[in-house]
Amino acid sequence: MDIMDESLALHRQLKGKIEIKSKKKIKDMHDMSLVYTPGVASACLAIKNQPSEAYNLTAKSNTIAVISDGTAVLGLGDIGPLAAIPVMEGKAALFKRFAGLDAIPIVLNTKDVDELVETIYRLSPSFGGINLEDISAPRCFEVERRLKEMCDIPVFHDDQHGTAIVCGAALLNALQLVKKKIANVKIVINGAGSAGIAITKFLLTLGAKNIVVCDRFGIVVDGDDRLNSAQKEISKITNLNLQKGKLDDALVEADVFIGVSVGNVVSEQMIKSMNSDAIVFPLANPTPEISRDKALKAGARVVGTGVSNLPNQINNALVFPGLFKGALAARVQQITPQMEIAACKALAHIVRPSELNETHIIPNIFNRKVALRVAKAVMKAGANE
Amino acid sequence: MDIMDESLALHRQLKGKIEIKSKKKIKDMHDMSLVYTPGVASACLAIKNQPSEAYNLTAKSNTIAVISDGTAVLGLGDIGPLAAIPVMEGKAALFKRFAGLDAIPIVLNTKDVDELVETIYRLSPSFGGINLEDISAPRCFEVERRLKEMCDIPVFHDDQHGTAIVCGAALLNALQLVKKKIANVKIVINGAGSAGIAITKFLLTLGAKNIVVCDRFGIVVDGDDRLNSAQKEISKITNLNLQKGKLDDALVEADVFIGVSVGNVVSEQMIKSMNSDAIVFPLANPTPEISRDKALKAGARVVGTGVSNLPNQINNALVFPGLFKGALAARVQQITPQMEIAACKALAHIVRPSELNETHIIPNIFNRKVALRVAKAVMKAGANE
Repeated sequence: MDIMDESLALHRQLKGKIEIKSKKKIKDMHDMSLVYTPGVASACLAIKNQPSEAYNLTAKSNTIAVISDGTAVLGLGDIGPLAAIPVMEGKAALFKRFAGLDAIPIVLNTKDVDELVETIYRLSPSFGGINLEDISAPRCFEVERRLKEMCDIPVFHDDQHGTAIVCGAALLNALQLVKKKIANVKIVINGAGSAGIAITKFLLTLGAKNIVVCDRFGIVVDGDDRLNSAQKEISKITNLNLQKGKLDDALVEADVFIGVSVGNVVSEQMIKSMNSDAIVFPLANPTPEISRDKALKAGARVVGTGVSNLPNQINNALVFPGLFKGALAARVQQITPQMEIAACKALAHIVRPSELNETHIIPNIFNRKVALRVAKAVMKAGANE
Repeated sequence: MDIMDESLALHRQLKGKIEIKSKKKIKDMHDMSLVYTPGVASACLAIKNQPSEAYNLTAKSNTIAVISDGTAVLGLGDIGPLAAIPVMEGKAALFKRFAGLDAIPIVLNTKDVDELVETIYRLSPSFGGINLEDISAPRCFEVERRLKEMCDIPVFHDDQHGTAIVCGAALLNALQLVKKKIANVKIVINGAGSAGIAITKFLLTLGAKNIVVCDRFGIVVDGDDRLNSAQKEISKITNLNLQKGKLDDALVEADVFIGVSVGNVVSEQMIKSMNSDAIVFPLANPTPEISRDKALKAGARVVGTGVSNLPNQINNALVFPGLFKGALAARVQQITPQMEIAACKALAHIVRPSELNETHIIPNIFNRKVALRVAKAVMKAGANE
């Protein structure tokens, strides 16, 4: 049975991958009186008198909402809220598995930016943090920006920043391996959607100076009126040489390729046109922009993909559990760029210099240190603000 | 330690009464591929192609949202969303304990009826049913009515209908005991809020003909311009003799008193003015309208309260777990009056005629038959529609 059939059968058998568990066993009427009326009034009144007590007397301090409108689910696109539930449940299972956090899947039957913002804002008191998921670009940028301004809990669009942070960590280690500096390399990013835009911005904060972004229409150049608002913003801080053309033009003498687009858009010839010691991250899922084998054959030195059974899996799950764990523990109101950089560097540093090699630039997701170190780094960065 | 202190200590120790549990243990990358990418795409696509598959492939079929705006929490009033969380978590714990349902607490930071309706509607795809909780009257009536029209899943305001159903079951059994017929008795209901209005309507559907409703200002009479919209509606179908006055006037020669108001508003003298074999349900919590002891001393024959350590506890938890269990199992789009009547009668019938006596008119909440029989009755009524 292939993985798709096996997964479908598992979904049908489980009827939901997560469930609620009561922490207190309710054996008798006394237990009822403690968890419900009349005893529960004591907790209600304590919170009414001191709202921050909600973090001590309810699950708020450990609970994340995983929220989607179902418009950009995996590589499947706009499949709607119902069809997005399995992904949100899967994410909730990972939050529990890797960070012990309780995540609640919520899918919304609206795609309107104003409605998404007001709906998510209104339900935010229930939660300690909000993980936005699979909301299509460029809507996702405005939704996140406005919610960050309104909410008093961390709001984080994982498809953007989770991807950017794990990608940044892999890149830092790969650059160390090939002895190049981030400030000196040419980085080509293919895909100017939520992930591509976020990776671009994040690598700039990590010190990159020379990034060229491409999309379906070719290289993103300042002044091109086909760009959406987010791409316009990016066009002013990347491609400072105003290079025009397609992806194959961009890749000539590039040091790094990062693909967050679709499968099979990069040829061996394109990899061959890159500089020596090329770093190639074709992250499209399930089919990468170029297969690992082809990229290596064409001369790439370090290859990382989104594929789970290959070396160097660049997986958001290396970041979001620990990141939220740390943010909730420090009880920060926002996840700042400083916390994201701290998470990125903590993740990179888990691979010791002596362990670093072409097939080990990023730790394995089942390495227990991952969520722990990321959480600690975020907590520390949060406490310093 | 009294129950309040003990409960507060428990809340502080647990930091949330419920948590998420992953049904599938994630031991390795293969498990990850099943619950998350790439395998999860199979479940997403199956639902995209056939939306009803969400009931077979996700937790939707077993998941209830318990939603409040924090405006009418217990007897504490408008304490706000954060302070309402402990009640919603408690309710979720009871849903799991008594019916195996997974309930998600959601509190909203708006009190506006339009905003409540649109927010709850937008998040409804995630759930198999919606339990509205602790929303103040008369707003709750409109919120529920509009959501019932909009949503394709059952919406149920427990403070109204849960209370009405359990109250109805207790009354049916008490009337059987004292050998009176519901069509012939005079019923006085004190409190014209969400519970009082719902009890009134429900007892009328059960066959009551003579109900007098009172509120703070006295007897509800058709034409009184102090009445809100819900009370106006009630004034046209109750008190057909247009009796005027206060609660003490209403109770003269009444057969049944049901209190859903505040503590200590009924005197022994008032009970004495009732007919013989009086049935008295002072349900205000934590302090009843009159204590059980006083009511009995004043001549009441059957007394039921909301208090857990007294006989005949009239507790919503006898209804809502089984009711939702049945509604979800039958996958009905609405909970209809027929289902509510079926739930009521099933609950009443759990007390066998041979067991029926003054201190046993309603089963104990820990009786395993309760949720099972209520669920079956609702399922059957649902299947017949």
